[in-house]
Amino acid sequence: MKATLMFGAGDVRVQDVPEPTILHPTDAIVRTVRTCVCGSDLHPYHSMEAQEHGQSMGHESLAVVEEIGAEVTSLRRGQLVVAPFSFADNTCPICRDGFQTACPHGGFYATPETNGLQAEFARIPLADGSLVPVPEVDADTADESLLASLLTLSDVYLTGYHAAYVAKVRPGQTVTVVGDGAVGLSAVLAAKQLGAERIILMGRHTARTDLGREFGATDVVSSRGEEGVAEVLDLTGGLGSEVVLEAVGHMPAYEQSYGVVRPGGVISRVGVPQYEEAPVGFGSLFGKNARLAGGPAPVRAYQEEAIGQVLRGEIEPGKVFDRTVGLDGVPAGYAAMDAREVLKVMVDPRL
Amino acid sequence: MKATLMFGAGDVRVQDVPEPTILHPTDAIVRTVRTCVCGSDLHPYHSMEAQEHGQSMGHESLAVVEEIGAEVTSLRRGQLVVAPFSFADNTCPICRDGFQTACPHGGFYATPETNGLQAEFARIPLADGSLVPVPEVDADTADESLLASLLTLSDVYLTGYHAAYVAKVRPGQTVTVVGDGAVGLSAVLAAKQLGAERIILMGRHTARTDLGREFGATDVVSSRGEEGVAEVLDLTGGLGSEVVLEAVGHMPAYEQSYGVVRPGGVISRVGVPQYEEAPVGFGSLFGKNARLAGGPAPVRAYQEEAIGQVLRGEIEPGKVFDRTVGLDGVPAGYAAMDAREVLKVMVDPRL
Repeated sequence: MKATLMFGAGDVRVQDVPEPTILHPTDAIVRTVRTCVCGSDLHPYHSMEAQEHGQSMGHESLAVVEEIGAEVTSLRRGQLVVAPFSFADNTCPICRDGFQTACPHGGFYATPETNGLQAEFARIPLADGSLVPVPEVDADTADESLLASLLTLSDVYLTGYHAAYVAKVRPGQTVTVVGDGAVGLSAVLAAKQLGAERIILMGRHTARTDLGREFGATDVVSSRGEEGVAEVLDLTGGLGSEVVLEAVGHMPAYEQSYGVVRPGGVISRVGVPQYEEAPVGFGSLFGKNARLAGGPAPVRAYQEEAIGQVLRGEIEPGKVFDRTVGLDGVPAGYAAMDAREVLKVMVDPRL
Repeated sequence: MKATLMFGAGDVRVQDVPEPTILHPTDAIVRTVRTCVCGSDLHPYHSMEAQEHGQSMGHESLAVVEEIGAEVTSLRRGQLVVAPFSFADNTCPICRDGFQTACPHGGFYATPETNGLQAEFARIPLADGSLVPVPEVDADTADESLLASLLTLSDVYLTGYHAAYVAKVRPGQTVTVVGDGAVGLSAVLAAKQLGAERIILMGRHTARTDLGREFGATDVVSSRGEEGVAEVLDLTGGLGSEVVLEAVGHMPAYEQSYGVVRPGGVISRVGVPQYEEAPVGFGSLFGKNARLAGGPAPVRAYQEEAIGQVLRGEIEPGKVFDRTVGLDGVPAGYAAMDAREVLKVMVDPRL
């Protein structure tokens, strides 16, 4: 089958690899209906050292169940399923708390131990906890826009939602979203869903911020750094933003975040931090009692509700996809996202 | 009048200085009934460069109103008042949010622009917002233990309370308190008040941890660093602590905090950070969705309720004081706290 492998910075290849098989009785094998390229895939695309054996890539998937292990009880062949971007048992105390990305028995895709999901087929560990059926949708006949929106529930929309959820966005609040990538725009849509009254989107790509406005942004600030901070403070009467959703992961976005947060407010991060240390002392967070929240989104916790919202047409998060390619087009898809020619690339293995 | 000045690390002197006077019509002048030495006073006691003009010291006070400015409306001469450790207008949007320590019109005592409160008299700016009357207590006849507990509402007890409050400690939770200083012990008492079921106190001074047990600690862990983290994880079934209250301010306490926090849990800091940068990335906070909260405690927000609790005898936070000196004894008080011979020194200017 075809699968996506990364051999170093800028070096993505689609190669023939053996089809996955059941390794544990709790596994399932799925056939990919749609997968996609994530902003976080661009981090190794910039930094990975060249290696002889490629690293399998991809962690987002809308798929059909092909085969289940002997201990899988909640799934059957032929079901359309969303795969959360990490796998988890969904039964342990941490999962029951709603933090499935920290499940001590779970893990992440596209590591040396697990396959990636930018492939025709994939093995899903702990399948009962890690695949969520989508009722009454036929992958072969469904609208492309519906499939796109369902695919976002694997990661991007619910990652934006996690940012807003853990920040406890409440009706009437002012929310600033840092970053106009697909996660940032998803965070705008999620903040709107949770009732934010004013949503300030910090981003400089008009095509993206236009979609942000469609998703609910009331203001767009294109300046960055100190100038951008000053503009957000101006927009908020000098007080700052009660909630800041940081959807980038680089230090300048973090610095903008603590610059614009209101005293007593919260910064919620879902951009994977490309730093370990950051300012948290008197001059950044502590002095103004700003809180820091966020992490890898436990999208599993939010999926049933979000699948319902998508099926009822209440939200259309799939609008973040602006190009669709086949698996052979994945390397060019990485390059186009990296060059910011496209916002987010969807992959249809049939193409 | 006598006032406490610091001239450099380890160099605290009590000198005669001019009595303060009303500078603004919103000021009040107060006569100190009791003041005290704070753990945070020990930070400059370790690090201040020698200087020719001393820095006035002290930010905690139980006092009597001596004089009020022309625009002060809520106070009268002779009232017993608690002075929160920072001053604020208590009317602006940030104060109404309950974050008076970030009031844009307020500030801190013992800076080059303001006097310290380890003195016989003090000028209180924005007096209507910055002094809280204590009803029906006569400073001259009240029990020493009552005065001690009221004094803790200026800072130490309500700083511990702030840690627990912003961490949203709920009945039934497991709370770990890092640090057995007076703020840490106050955090234990506050966590108990908010219903914590299990309170693990990390500290190694038996006299202090004994008071911690009296305040509500159910477990004491005297080990530090990786060993201490491992013990807390053992005590919590490997999951970690839902809430961590960090009451020290040094990096090893921060590191212990993210070591013991449960995924999805919260670290609430009230020890003034002696660092600006700290780990917050995938390997510390982000990976397990741990939240970071805390800051300078807006004690003003909690005072009316706490004064009532003290007057009704429901809490006795004044037990953190284990030595009382006159103003001339303040330099020796700093030295004794620094040497950990005493937990917290109270100052009675009449002595």
